[in-house]
Amino acid sequence: MTKERGIIPRKIKGFRDIDANLNALRQHIVETASKVYKSYGFEHWDTPVLEYAEVLGKYMPDADTVEQGVYAFRNPEEEPVLLEDGNEMRDAEGRVIMENHMLALRYDLTAPLARVYAESLWLDFKRKQVQEGRSPLFRRFQYGPVFRYEVKLMPGRYREFWQLDFDTVGSDDVATDAEACMILSDALEAIGLKPETYLVKVNNRKVLKGFLAGIGIEDEETEQGILRIIDKLDKVGWESVVLELGPGRTDSSGAEVPGMGLAEETVSRIVEFLKSTGDVNSRRDALAKLESAVGDHPVAVEGLAELRKMNEIWESLGYDETRIVFDPTLMRGMAYYTGPVFEAESLLTYKDEKGKKRKVGSICGGGRYDDLVNRLLGMKVPATGASIGVDRLAEVLRMSMPELAQATGPVLIAYFDDELQTTYYQIASELRKAGIEAEVYSGFFKGFRKIKKQMSYADKKNCPAVILLGGDEAAKGVVTVKNLRLGKELSSQIIDKQEWNKLVQKEVSRTDLVAHLKEIL
Amino acid sequence: MTKERGIIPRKIKGFRDIDANLNALRQHIVETASKVYKSYGFEHWDTPVLEYAEVLGKYMPDADTVEQGVYAFRNPEEEPVLLEDGNEMRDAEGRVIMENHMLALRYDLTAPLARVYAESLWLDFKRKQVQEGRSPLFRRFQYGPVFRYEVKLMPGRYREFWQLDFDTVGSDDVATDAEACMILSDALEAIGLKPETYLVKVNNRKVLKGFLAGIGIEDEETEQGILRIIDKLDKVGWESVVLELGPGRTDSSGAEVPGMGLAEETVSRIVEFLKSTGDVNSRRDALAKLESAVGDHPVAVEGLAELRKMNEIWESLGYDETRIVFDPTLMRGMAYYTGPVFEAESLLTYKDEKGKKRKVGSICGGGRYDDLVNRLLGMKVPATGASIGVDRLAEVLRMSMPELAQATGPVLIAYFDDELQTTYYQIASELRKAGIEAEVYSGFFKGFRKIKKQMSYADKKNCPAVILLGGDEAAKGVVTVKNLRLGKELSSQIIDKQEWNKLVQKEVSRTDLVAHLKEIL
Repeated sequence: MTKERGIIPRKIKGFRDIDANLNALRQHIVETASKVYKSYGFEHWDTPVLEYAEVLGKYMPDADTVEQGVYAFRNPEEEPVLLEDGNEMRDAEGRVIMENHMLALRYDLTAPLARVYAESLWLDFKRKQVQEGRSPLFRRFQYGPVFRYEVKLMPGRYREFWQLDFDTVGSDDVATDAEACMILSDALEAIGLKPETYLVKVNNRKVLKGFLAGIGIEDEETEQGILRIIDKLDKVGWESVVLELGPGRTDSSGAEVPGMGLAEETVSRIVEFLKSTGDVNSRRDALAKLESAVGDHPVAVEGLAELRKMNEIWESLGYDETRIVFDPTLMRGMAYYTGPVFEAESLLTYKDEKGKKRKVGSICGGGRYDDLVNRLLGMKVPATGASIGVDRLAEVLRMSMPELAQATGPVLIAYFDDELQTTYYQIASELRKAGIEAEVYSGFFKGFRKIKKQMSYADKKNCPAVILLGGDEAAKGVVTVKNLRLGKELSSQIIDKQEWNKLVQKEVSRTDLVAHLKEIL
Repeated sequence: MTKERGIIPRKIKGFRDIDANLNALRQHIVETASKVYKSYGFEHWDTPVLEYAEVLGKYMPDADTVEQGVYAFRNPEEEPVLLEDGNEMRDAEGRVIMENHMLALRYDLTAPLARVYAESLWLDFKRKQVQEGRSPLFRRFQYGPVFRYEVKLMPGRYREFWQLDFDTVGSDDVATDAEACMILSDALEAIGLKPETYLVKVNNRKVLKGFLAGIGIEDEETEQGILRIIDKLDKVGWESVVLELGPGRTDSSGAEVPGMGLAEETVSRIVEFLKSTGDVNSRRDALAKLESAVGDHPVAVEGLAELRKMNEIWESLGYDETRIVFDPTLMRGMAYYTGPVFEAESLLTYKDEKGKKRKVGSICGGGRYDDLVNRLLGMKVPATGASIGVDRLAEVLRMSMPELAQATGPVLIAYFDDELQTTYYQIASELRKAGIEAEVYSGFFKGFRKIKKQMSYADKKNCPAVILLGGDEAAKGVVTVKNLRLGKELSSQIIDKQEWNKLVQKEVSRTDLVAHLKEIL
């Protein structure tokens, strides 16, 4: 049976190739946002795709699938197991205990950042050369692929996708959270989004936490459970949230979704609180309404004060409610957030394959995570940051700015005559020296080539022009230039074939070629 | 025992972080070479980091470690096993056979390219809608991390490193091989290498293959074995090559290296052939010497004719022996090469940790691989391409152009006074709008901050200037600008402290700040 087994050329399910057009979008996003991040003083770092699984920890959204959430495997290399102090663990006979440690493909860029930071201080901290609260400020940006093994893969979702993060580690001032929201806004607009097509939503987990404590819910597990259910609001709606907080529900596929079993009164108090800001858009009004709804638990009071300070900074710099709003139902999925959380939402809608109108939704997210470094270092290091979902944003651009999603090819030099091969390469070299991208057609196999095939190659590659040069033309010292860009424009007009040819095809002397191409490109 | 186990913040052995300075080099290489590749008509594509292991195949150098050469693991998702025709494999009872397929982190960017190309044609080929020799021309470039599990990790080598590839698929014309060598030369020089500091070496595996066939060695296994030993010449020297072709040898660590057991006369004929071009640098002379040494086996004759054609193109375009030379001992490690192979070598030397002078060696490599797509598609598709070893080249640049390996930080706005916080952010925003990178210092923890710490932060980040603004200055409408760049220059001169301060520190009015900064930056 094994013999019949085939090697089929295919990608792993949930993975995809990025072609030249999609890559043009991705490059545009990465380059533009990187410049914005850098303009705020973030340095460009990179970390490995692969890390020790235990170092990354498990902070993924949707706790029900955490076990299957990452791609993890055993290191082929055997290494000592380490104790908390970094020394090797030994058995009763004093032999070093060896193991093939679990490795994991990173599921985000934040957990690796915590490792970078903790690693740089770990030895000094163990030697008591760094005190809590005295660890250095570090601001870095990073982009690249992250990996999530989502068991149920929704349409349009991928198991490998790009993130583009910036983070400030070592500051407990929420001014850096306010700044993060401004950076998201600046970056999205630099990339080309209009203010009315996106919105940065902001909340503070401390506000809900303080409110829950005020009504008697203080254990972390219940709190995280409530938070995760509220996080699904956008997807499932209020009715399902109420049922999941209470007795549970049956979803559209008929599957049972277990409930948290909270008392009916508790559930309605939570929902009432979450709806307290109503449709208010003004940040000041939202703060006032939250203040009266949240109670006087100190954590909630602290959370509100932080939001107030963030608002002051935005007001002083002119980031108004067309760009940044408060939303008490915003939670963000990652378990590591401890305070302010933010999300940039695209307000664009599209029709799915069934013709149903859908919102694009979240394209960036972030928040404060004051305990993530602590886990690795044993010392509290406050941190905040945000991430652009590059692939999701690329889809937004493909809809709203299709002209960006079209890579341009080189000027193609068609191949007619073996005698002229070096001439073709010489022309290409001349063009390149003049700053014009140029390619000599080379799609041969045992001498087979056809001009029709060459033209369709140029067309598929979106080449702006083709240069034609046969023996007769070479003898006259001329070449024919076919202006494919103009050809495409004219093809929508009614025009006779002869005239079309006259406009689109021009004979020019070799010496005028560069000038002519510069004119038409 | 398990309880004591620690989570130590650390990277996997053989992996590393890329800091801002190293990233500046990497970005310079990737951006510059990408432009060169694009100017030759290559499109930018990307493929997943993870692929089905069987699709990638095993073509790694150093066959003795092939089994451990890649990071591979079972897909957490169960999927049907497929037959050669793409249908699901079933057991005797007709049930689909399921399996967790082996996945692997890509070990290069060539095997995934073969998958991309084969996948795009596979269905059409099965339906007999594509004929051999009629498959489309495809030219793409791609960069990103690749992964090799090298069991013995040499100093300066990593298990994750970046490659930057370009390939032409669908052409059997060695003009595309000649072009690949020119592209390597163009890219390296655009990146900043001087012609006298690197050399592109070229050979054709067909020449050795034909020669070996001429002396009676025709089975592929022996041929590949000989090739792999010659490939190690640069590392181990002639004496060891002779011993490995023959009886074997004992290496410097005392380990036995088994020999191929070829007869003494065979070994000396091979060595004589490999040395036939001697120290000749002229490509024409090398071709002439090879011609008389190689014999008249048709494969060797074909190989030489290909090299001759490549030489003609280089001559017609001015790529002389200061850039490209022939080297009959060049083999390249990958098993998939079938014809011309090339390598760019850095001629720089450095002193290793023991003070021993060492050559940097290979920084780019490539060649023709006419059978790689065949394996997946069942149809011959000729292809050629090359790859820049980005990290190795970055090391070369760090030695030869250290100024590139220094990222520049933003103008830092020091933080003195809580009352002025929004003013600090407003100044930063003004500077950014004027195109100046600016950061407000934010390294706080419960209000702790020190100006000394802020200055050392600016210094570490290579900030060109720091802006100082306290209550008194704010009242006067001025700020103090400290020119750190000038400060560094002056620090090498003998100059008294007062004068130093006068030159380096300037009070300017808020309204003149942008103009002043533009002047000093």
